[in-house]
Amino acid sequence: MPSVGIVGGTGYTGVELLRLLVIHPSVELTVITSRSAVGQRVDEMFPSLRGFIDLTFSEPSLELLSQCDVVFFATPNGTAMQMVPELLQAGIKVIDLAADFRLKDPDVWLQWYKMEHACPELLAEAVYGLPELNREQIKTARLLANPGCYPTAVQLGFLPLLQQGLVQNERLIADVKSGVSGAGRGAQVPTLLCESSESFKAYGVAGHRHWPEVHQGLSAVVGHSVGLTFVPHLVPMIRGIHATLYAELKQPCDVQALFEEYYAEEPFVDVLPAGSHPETRSVKGSNHCRIAVHQPENSRHVVILSVIDNLVKGAAGQAVQNMNLMLALPESTGLRMPAMMP
Amino acid sequence: MPSVGIVGGTGYTGVELLRLLVIHPSVELTVITSRSAVGQRVDEMFPSLRGFIDLTFSEPSLELLSQCDVVFFATPNGTAMQMVPELLQAGIKVIDLAADFRLKDPDVWLQWYKMEHACPELLAEAVYGLPELNREQIKTARLLANPGCYPTAVQLGFLPLLQQGLVQNERLIADVKSGVSGAGRGAQVPTLLCESSESFKAYGVAGHRHWPEVHQGLSAVVGHSVGLTFVPHLVPMIRGIHATLYAELKQPCDVQALFEEYYAEEPFVDVLPAGSHPETRSVKGSNHCRIAVHQPENSRHVVILSVIDNLVKGAAGQAVQNMNLMLALPESTGLRMPAMMP
Amino acid sequence: MPSVGIVGGTGYTGVELLRLLVIHPSVELTVITSRSAVGQRVDEMFPSLRGFIDLTFSEPSLELLSQCDVVFFATPNGTAMQMVPELLQAGIKVIDLAADFRLKDPDVWLQWYKMEHACPELLAEAVYGLPELNREQIKTARLLANPGCYPTAVQLGFLPLLQQGLVQNERLIADVKSGVSGAGRGAQVPTLLCESSESFKAYGVAGHRHWPEVHQGLSAVVGHSVGLTFVPHLVPMIRGIHATLYAELKQPCDVQALFEEYYAEEPFVDVLPAGSHPETRSVKGSNHCRIAVHQPENSRHVVILSVIDNLVKGAAGQAVQNMNLMLALPESTGLRMPAMMP
Amino acid sequence: MPSVGIVGGTGYTGVELLRLLVIHPSVELTVITSRSAVGQRVDEMFPSLRGFIDLTFSEPSLELLSQCDVVFFATPNGTAMQMVPELLQAGIKVIDLAADFRLKDPDVWLQWYKMEHACPELLAEAVYGLPELNREQIKTARLLANPGCYPTAVQLGFLPLLQQGLVQNERLIADVKSGVSGAGRGAQVPTLLCESSESFKAYGVAGHRHWPEVHQGLSAVVGHSVGLTFVPHLVPMIRGIHATLYAELKQPCDVQALFEEYYAEEPFVDVLPAGSHPETRSVKGSNHCRIAVHQPENSRHVVILSVIDNLVKGAAGQAVQNMNLMLALPESTGLRMPAMMP
Repeated sequence: MPSVGIVGGTGYTGVELLRLLVIHPSVELTVITSRSAVGQRVDEMFPSLRGFIDLTFSEPSLELLSQCDVVFFATPNGTAMQMVPELLQAGIKVIDLAADFRLKDPDVWLQWYKMEHACPELLAEAVYGLPELNREQIKTARLLANPGCYPTAVQLGFLPLLQQGLVQNERLIADVKSGVSGAGRGAQVPTLLCESSESFKAYGVAGHRHWPEVHQGLSAVVGHSVGLTFVPHLVPMIRGIHATLYAELKQPCDVQALFEEYYAEEPFVDVLPAGSHPETRSVKGSNHCRIAVHQPENSRHVVILSVIDNLVKGAAGQAVQNMNLMLALPESTGLRMPAMMP
Repeated sequence: MPSVGIVGGTGYTGVELLRLLVIHPSVELTVITSRSAVGQRVDEMFPSLRGFIDLTFSEPSLELLSQCDVVFFATPNGTAMQMVPELLQAGIKVIDLAADFRLKDPDVWLQWYKMEHACPELLAEAVYGLPELNREQIKTARLLANPGCYPTAVQLGFLPLLQQGLVQNERLIADVKSGVSGAGRGAQVPTLLCESSESFKAYGVAGHRHWPEVHQGLSAVVGHSVGLTFVPHLVPMIRGIHATLYAELKQPCDVQALFEEYYAEEPFVDVLPAGSHPETRSVKGSNHCRIAVHQPENSRHVVILSVIDNLVKGAAGQAVQNMNLMLALPESTGLRMPAMMP
Repeated sequence: MPSVGIVGGTGYTGVELLRLLVIHPSVELTVITSRSAVGQRVDEMFPSLRGFIDLTFSEPSLELLSQCDVVFFATPNGTAMQMVPELLQAGIKVIDLAADFRLKDPDVWLQWYKMEHACPELLAEAVYGLPELNREQIKTARLLANPGCYPTAVQLGFLPLLQQGLVQNERLIADVKSGVSGAGRGAQVPTLLCESSESFKAYGVAGHRHWPEVHQGLSAVVGHSVGLTFVPHLVPMIRGIHATLYAELKQPCDVQALFEEYYAEEPFVDVLPAGSHPETRSVKGSNHCRIAVHQPENSRHVVILSVIDNLVKGAAGQAVQNMNLMLALPESTGLRMPAMMP
Repeated sequence: MPSVGIVGGTGYTGVELLRLLVIHPSVELTVITSRSAVGQRVDEMFPSLRGFIDLTFSEPSLELLSQCDVVFFATPNGTAMQMVPELLQAGIKVIDLAADFRLKDPDVWLQWYKMEHACPELLAEAVYGLPELNREQIKTARLLANPGCYPTAVQLGFLPLLQQGLVQNERLIADVKSGVSGAGRGAQVPTLLCESSESFKAYGVAGHRHWPEVHQGLSAVVGHSVGLTFVPHLVPMIRGIHATLYAELKQPCDVQALFEEYYAEEPFVDVLPAGSHPETRSVKGSNHCRIAVHQPENSRHVVILSVIDNLVKGAAGQAVQNMNLMLALPESTGLRMPAMMP
């Protein structure tokens, strides 16, 4: 059975990877590292895992990770790029849940992440892990850049329209909303319960790091730079992303049929019946993206509603889906779980 | 001291009116009616008011209400229009917090509210109670249509741009988000805690009753029918509205300065410093609207963020503000309270 | 593969049964009934199940249910007792998630549930489905009374102390707290988000239906009527029960060791290390009960903290655990899932 | 008009003091200090106060504070005791919202707060600011120790029973629950929204600093050391404390009548009708304590339910109430506000 490791397992994407991997039937989790928690039992930090895992956090090291067939990085941006070259050389497949390998242009990386890229020569090889877009390349990838949470929801919502060339590419709008777990597990005043519950706000309107990622993806699809306004908001809940997308159709078309056909074979994209309003809770804990399309009366816009669980399809679940593809396992292995309701 | 009455005091706008009126220094609350709660003490239904009110719910009647100088209707849509004509004839000023007198065209009313209007002859006289737009007419109004919650936040956000003719009026977008109290106090499955907490969704994308109200208001300002896409969402919190507004500027301009100047004298509209992101909690329980304006890099849109408490500036607080104007009291009387934080 | 049916699948225990059964590897869900939703697709009511279930709600009937090996009742109290006799006669095993068969004395049933019991002759036969107490009888049961949510958490917390005769049985206190899903999916004002979030209250202090159930269970263990004060509270969250239990030790003893030993072999009861404070979220979505024991300085009481997910170990999960036992399947089949965190 | 200052105004008790003092009609807030925020405008940190305050955070200094008639300390434990002696010498009245002057015995202080007391000679003089217990001493106090949040709710609930000698003083239980704002505004992982919402837990069962405070207060009332078990819990909400109190009556008595009579003249203690269950939201933002008493069937215990807003009657509101008494203002000045509902 393939052996997998996790570098940086103490944040929310890390513990979500743990939740999925400890019951995955076809891989074995053998290593988990965290500089800050070396020596601590994993289930002491996360009592929800008592009875499911017998590991202790280790110091990250090439020697330790070399035992693995696949290594996940659930680390802050800029960490994976320091270790990936030597892991690849050691023949290990790498899945990075951070942003290090998502942007193809190292200058764009520098501009948005404020650090020089440590291995720009790998950017071209890295495969952007959106299976609905890049399934075949993923299957043979050594280095996989797992997409961001917003970019997953936004791209899955815009893709059918853009690939068919049906909308004005220069005035796309993504009004996106995320639960608080998207901000991570670091101790910060703004994400305290008393600061973020019973309130709603936009943030990063001047510029958010997921803008270049979405812009790169959508522009690649249409073959030129799209015009995209991207406004993220914080929702007083733990999990979930809701993307409300606006585009202007060039000419009338049956958008519902387009989406249903486009995603007909996808195991984790679910196009809802016409007139639906997907709730984020309908994917809470599951790897699904649910999408509804609307053409409101009195409006020149087509409106797409796209929901995911930011920690699953927006992070750890999609990473496992990618791992399954990279290991030639059935794509849904370990991911066939309905959302928790209520 | 002027005497005021409330028809229909058992919903959220009703109890919010109560919260404000029981400590209002210049009016006396003397009557409150509710068909469903006749004979019940008000503070038995709302223990938060114990010690502040000694009234009992009465059957609504002209005789009883005639003792009042001002009557508020906090009733479902379609109720006020049945009683208003006789109240006006009796010389009583009326403030309707429902939608009965907001739309000028009875056909539009019929289309969106699915009932014939009972007194279309009063629609022209009714004053739309947005003080920032209609302050002078409000002062002399007999019949006041208190604006809807979304329409308050959206119009206050768009007004400066539209009055100056700075944006393309045919492609306005209002992506609006409301706390659950906007759905009222009726017992319904979708607004149970277990259905609406820990989740986020859009609703009414095909068409929402606040669309014609906003459309009417904005169109009146620019002198022709504007193009408006309006998408409401439900936020898992009790109070608060956040409007994220998108418009395309016709030419570069200093939007920040425009807004600051436009609202410089307004007691309840607060334009935040450049770069701000207003949180709905910054107005929780207060009558303020806080606004921030952005022109994101990489975007052709100006983005306006406008927040209110849907039950205060979006309902009961604005109604008291209007009452103050109608009674020639200082406009802020009884409304000088900071938001509750946290 | 055994075939199972659900009567009354539209409430929270019903949909939780669905979540567990659609991925259970050793049984097949073939029937689900609901008088109010006949003809509706299950995944239309619960979009979280799209892709997992292809059933439609049926009218409940003996004919239909006779195809099943096991039938779950997720109905209101008083419904199962009307249908159970004929199902048993047809050779079908029954698991009732309501209270119909929990109380052994029909007079006590009448007193607390305000209706005559329809089949008191079955009360003696019905097995109370707390596996940690009655595992052997459960294996051979035809009729299983699945315990209430509070009674599960409270009895698992008190059992070791009472079975060893270590505490004063006449002054037990259970201060218990439940998430709102315990109140069901019916449309009611008190469980609206705007009524029950951001607040905490006790309820039913004068008498709650879980009192006689806990009293019966604990009294049976010690052989006489125990003295029990039982105070339930409503917590502003969806899932979870936290029982804080107080008892006075007759003499000093190592309570930690006692609990660890008592539950050493139990797959779903987890005694935490000394000094722990279990969080309800550590069992959110899982079938575990986590327990911690304390003997505070400055106190004559031993304090037991016991948490479960009211919909899993407190309802649907325990029902599946019981079904596994009744069908001679491994007890944990389909229930090996860590809690969702965060 | 008396001038007041606040030392340490950046935490939750500080900003709540601000909310109350900026609209207090009979005092003027002239100074606010914070070492960490020197030079920052108060309304920049707390936008909810925009339009209500024009102050900037200052460095704390005797010179600055000497301009005030009253100084509030909203600082961490151990800070006030460093500055109080010189303020008193300068003739300034001091109200400490921290614990520095609550415990009469410096050894007990040392044991629970792990630091030597800086001015033990002032402990005897300091008045414990529970107006319902010490109103007369408060009126003449120079140095006031504002009670803790839990101690306020618990003592108000037990006082009538203990003063009348009606219960067994050696087996009192306080099962208390608090909203998360009680944990303060510091950046800590356990109080992040993603860690503390959708969950419930006990904490500090082994020993909590409010135990000695309650123990001291209740023991003083009865004249000997009471037996008290005290178990605090964290509720996933911002504000509110609910104390569930258990005591055994020595003999039957009309507890409802006792409480109603005991608190008949109190402006901020409200005894609810028999059979009531007070909700914490009924005091959200208000200075009231609401109490209900129960004698459940099948129980040997009297159960008292006592709710307050931890930031108001449990901190800043009670401090203002004490200030009013110390300045010979009407006790309710600036505090006549109903709770926010919903």
